[in-house]
Amino acid sequence: MSAPEPGRAAMGNGARPVFLVIGAGAGIGGNAARRFAAGGYHAVLARRSDAAGLERMVGEIRQAGGSASGTLLNAAEDGAIEDLVARTEAEYGPIQAALYNLGAQIGNRALADTPHRLFELGWRLATFGLFRLAHALLPRMAARAQTGAHGALLVTSATAAMRGNAGQHSHAAAMGGRRMLCQTLNAEFAPQGVHVVHVVVDGPVDAPDTLGKLMGDRYQAFKAGKGADGLIDPKALAETYWHLAHQPRNCWSHEVDVRPWSDVPWWNDNPAPEIDARGKGLAGPTE
Amino acid sequence: MSAPEPGRAAMGNGARPVFLVIGAGAGIGGNAARRFAAGGYHAVLARRSDAAGLERMVGEIRQAGGSASGTLLNAAEDGAIEDLVARTEAEYGPIQAALYNLGAQIGNRALADTPHRLFELGWRLATFGLFRLAHALLPRMAARAQTGAHGALLVTSATAAMRGNAGQHSHAAAMGGRRMLCQTLNAEFAPQGVHVVHVVVDGPVDAPDTLGKLMGDRYQAFKAGKGADGLIDPKALAETYWHLAHQPRNCWSHEVDVRPWSDVPWWNDNPAPEIDARGKGLAGPTE
Amino acid sequence: MSAPEPGRAAMGNGARPVFLVIGAGAGIGGNAARRFAAGGYHAVLARRSDAAGLERMVGEIRQAGGSASGTLLNAAEDGAIEDLVARTEAEYGPIQAALYNLGAQIGNRALADTPHRLFELGWRLATFGLFRLAHALLPRMAARAQTGAHGALLVTSATAAMRGNAGQHSHAAAMGGRRMLCQTLNAEFAPQGVHVVHVVVDGPVDAPDTLGKLMGDRYQAFKAGKGADGLIDPKALAETYWHLAHQPRNCWSHEVDVRPWSDVPWWNDNPAPEIDARGKGLAGPTE
Amino acid sequence: MSAPEPGRAAMGNGARPVFLVIGAGAGIGGNAARRFAAGGYHAVLARRSDAAGLERMVGEIRQAGGSASGTLLNAAEDGAIEDLVARTEAEYGPIQAALYNLGAQIGNRALADTPHRLFELGWRLATFGLFRLAHALLPRMAARAQTGAHGALLVTSATAAMRGNAGQHSHAAAMGGRRMLCQTLNAEFAPQGVHVVHVVVDGPVDAPDTLGKLMGDRYQAFKAGKGADGLIDPKALAETYWHLAHQPRNCWSHEVDVRPWSDVPWWNDNPAPEIDARGKGLAGPTE
Repeated sequence: MSAPEPGRAAMGNGARPVFLVIGAGAGIGGNAARRFAAGGYHAVLARRSDAAGLERMVGEIRQAGGSASGTLLNAAEDGAIEDLVARTEAEYGPIQAALYNLGAQIGNRALADTPHRLFELGWRLATFGLFRLAHALLPRMAARAQTGAHGALLVTSATAAMRGNAGQHSHAAAMGGRRMLCQTLNAEFAPQGVHVVHVVVDGPVDAPDTLGKLMGDRYQAFKAGKGADGLIDPKALAETYWHLAHQPRNCWSHEVDVRPWSDVPWWNDNPAPEIDARGKGLAGPTE
Repeated sequence: MSAPEPGRAAMGNGARPVFLVIGAGAGIGGNAARRFAAGGYHAVLARRSDAAGLERMVGEIRQAGGSASGTLLNAAEDGAIEDLVARTEAEYGPIQAALYNLGAQIGNRALADTPHRLFELGWRLATFGLFRLAHALLPRMAARAQTGAHGALLVTSATAAMRGNAGQHSHAAAMGGRRMLCQTLNAEFAPQGVHVVHVVVDGPVDAPDTLGKLMGDRYQAFKAGKGADGLIDPKALAETYWHLAHQPRNCWSHEVDVRPWSDVPWWNDNPAPEIDARGKGLAGPTE
Repeated sequence: MSAPEPGRAAMGNGARPVFLVIGAGAGIGGNAARRFAAGGYHAVLARRSDAAGLERMVGEIRQAGGSASGTLLNAAEDGAIEDLVARTEAEYGPIQAALYNLGAQIGNRALADTPHRLFELGWRLATFGLFRLAHALLPRMAARAQTGAHGALLVTSATAAMRGNAGQHSHAAAMGGRRMLCQTLNAEFAPQGVHVVHVVVDGPVDAPDTLGKLMGDRYQAFKAGKGADGLIDPKALAETYWHLAHQPRNCWSHEVDVRPWSDVPWWNDNPAPEIDARGKGLAGPTE
Repeated sequence: MSAPEPGRAAMGNGARPVFLVIGAGAGIGGNAARRFAAGGYHAVLARRSDAAGLERMVGEIRQAGGSASGTLLNAAEDGAIEDLVARTEAEYGPIQAALYNLGAQIGNRALADTPHRLFELGWRLATFGLFRLAHALLPRMAARAQTGAHGALLVTSATAAMRGNAGQHSHAAAMGGRRMLCQTLNAEFAPQGVHVVHVVVDGPVDAPDTLGKLMGDRYQAFKAGKGADGLIDPKALAETYWHLAHQPRNCWSHEVDVRPWSDVPWWNDNPAPEIDARGKGLAGPTE
């Protein structure tokens, strides 16, 4: 097992640094856990349901020679995240890196079909949960940074943090709050040696637990229609997470976007405008 | 009394169009009410407390020849905004324009000094309250737009909607959510003929009820230190609100910023970097 | 003729303040000239070609009781803009407000079909020309601001200043430079009392001289396809320009966007995603 | 020598993939060359002057077991970049990755002290040079992408691409154009399998050839004042460049920012606002 990068994850007595994932499904969260475990961390996987699936992921990491443990978590429950942080550090040692990976996508709904409690639930999972994790974890990381261990909090975010599309009232409001919160957290904690990264996942992820469930039967056809490498492979994203969590403190990224090569970025027209090779193409008249 | 612009506020039988202000203090909200009343609207002023101050504002508008009424409102209370919308339309007629003017600024606080309930309160006032107003009001406006009355929802917003500064955990997360919500509202309702405007107030407003209270004794010194025209005059901002609410539907602004001439915009270094007239000045090395 | 707003355009001896338009075609530029002339300015209309069309516009303004003059201008020619500013002030008095309205849209072209000279021409018209106007005009305005005449430089900009779409290499690079230049101009000159506004025209304008020529035969069908109020009426935009040029210095907007009600803003998916009223709609999986 | 990642840099016959750096000084450019050479590339270092320094860097790479060559280049000269691309591919084989690293920082200058030719030079180096490199290189990369070799064009950019600070007329306009150009390049070439990354270097880099020369005698004091890890180490940035250039095509970043932990990001107030731990701090009233 390769050693974690010096200076970031030095643990002294040979104990493994801890990587905590909140939202450890079979997509981004699980693959990040796998990557950090392969890199020498003890991975703690927390997710809302499916104890069997969780056990299977933990088992796979162990079989690959890694160290991991899993726990079910209702992140919306009062005190649950705080308890998880405290228990994790008590049992496994200091959390060196964490990934907040809870989403709040509910599909496109008209305002009239977005009940108050759904709008609130989006905020509770996407914004408030991150606040609570930061509240519980960042002061611990800041204290440890004084002795050279610069922790990292990775935050999976979404296109909806950057712009609000039709039907995304709950999701965009929650993710917009998440993005600003990442900025205020960095503004306070980066100078204390703790690194927060807001990762804008601006494309579909090949994730059976989230996109797969959301789309149901249509998933395979959707995936096939995207063509080769047309969905983000969560293993590739995990590699970028690993890189970000180990940037030396003189060179920290705060906001990073990712998408497949074949996808139109959120700021461009979708579908992309036609280019007329003879130079006679009509620009979108609004350009 | 001047007639409201044709097409925007045509009321048929001579009744006044209604302008509803949620957050009608002595600063932005009260001045907007005054401006719209002067332009021929019946202004409904809602605010949380200070019945005497509210009564005074309503009286001033009436003395100036305008039409206005006032009501106290606890916007965080369940059903309060919905009731206000229903009552207003029942008593005074269709709401042609509304201003959501509730802020959630609590000063700069470290994360450790930002309790969970305060973080939630910020969201409840700045994001959820707007959602609830939109939920109650925009379908009504959309129905009326089919007969040519294109309503407008003005939303006072803040620098914190654009970036998260140190100490602004609650405020920035709430305002970031507000901004994305304005975008999703426009995405759904602009094509139905309802106009939502997100106004980024990127500078201090000369407002005794908000900034004055927040700063207390320091307010007068702060104001003097800003120099002539160094604070936004809410009367000037009210003029911009009036303009925005009456843009014809072929030319709608979705996001507008304002600040005093002497203030540094949120995207620039504050204080502004020195310019060396001999061309030897050192750029911020990060430029 | 109504008087220009006090403090902005006070000229003392009864002379009219001057409004200079560079790029005075039959769309935005001409309508802005008409609006400012109606508000009491002497409008100076400069455009590259079509002396007859220019003469007609000047004549129309005069017939409506306004004051105007016109001149042909090759803005890309060295010294041309500088001469125009000097001549205008010598003949008509201080330029109180100016509009830089030159575009550089050439339609969508692949990189291979974008010759070097075309890329450079885009920059020369869209970025460098504004620099040259600012160089010639803003120090004059800054000197006059010390005696209370706060000039305004309005800059027509485009979606391409905010994001780079496929085929827009020349246009987007030029407009991105224009936007940053507006910010550096404000950073230096707003504190000296001169107001620069970057107006993002994020939708098609009903302008026979630009969009009409670009589209040729397809223009009428395009316009019809957009439906009622589906193109920006340059008269409406001129009203917003007038408002912006007369904001008091305590409440200045630096960046404003406009588009028709029926148009998708640049940040949203185009076409807009479908909303499923039963709450089963699939969000763009990248949201 | 470690093998380059499969699929990105597969060269077939054992030849090294080529990494071309335009702007290979002793800071970012030289360190990127070193990193890519260590990873198995042949590095081609191009810079404007200092043949001896260039020779030294090439020699160091070779001594470390890497493969490299150097050439002087006047990027502003017509045809120079095009020739470099053609010669490089003829001599060393296909350019698999390139870094455009020319800056155009001239320090803070008032508009009156920014001559026309300086403004133009900024554009010529920062915007037009990238256009010319893309024009010469990207069609080659796109052709090779059809057989699985997905090339990458890394672009070093600056804070000034995101906002225009006082005194930055030339630099910000040029960098704003650069940013939009990166977006139009990605919009056309990402779907063809070529990856362009715009890297916003939002902090001072410990680079003797650029920042060192710009600051002269003040450099050491400036660096000391920044404290430990207070400047970006170009070796760390080179590691991020390496990561970005090797992201699989299903997970590409288009825009990434970096800065030292102790630096205030461009969007935050600089210096950072004070946080009052007792919760009585005054927010920037503009928040």
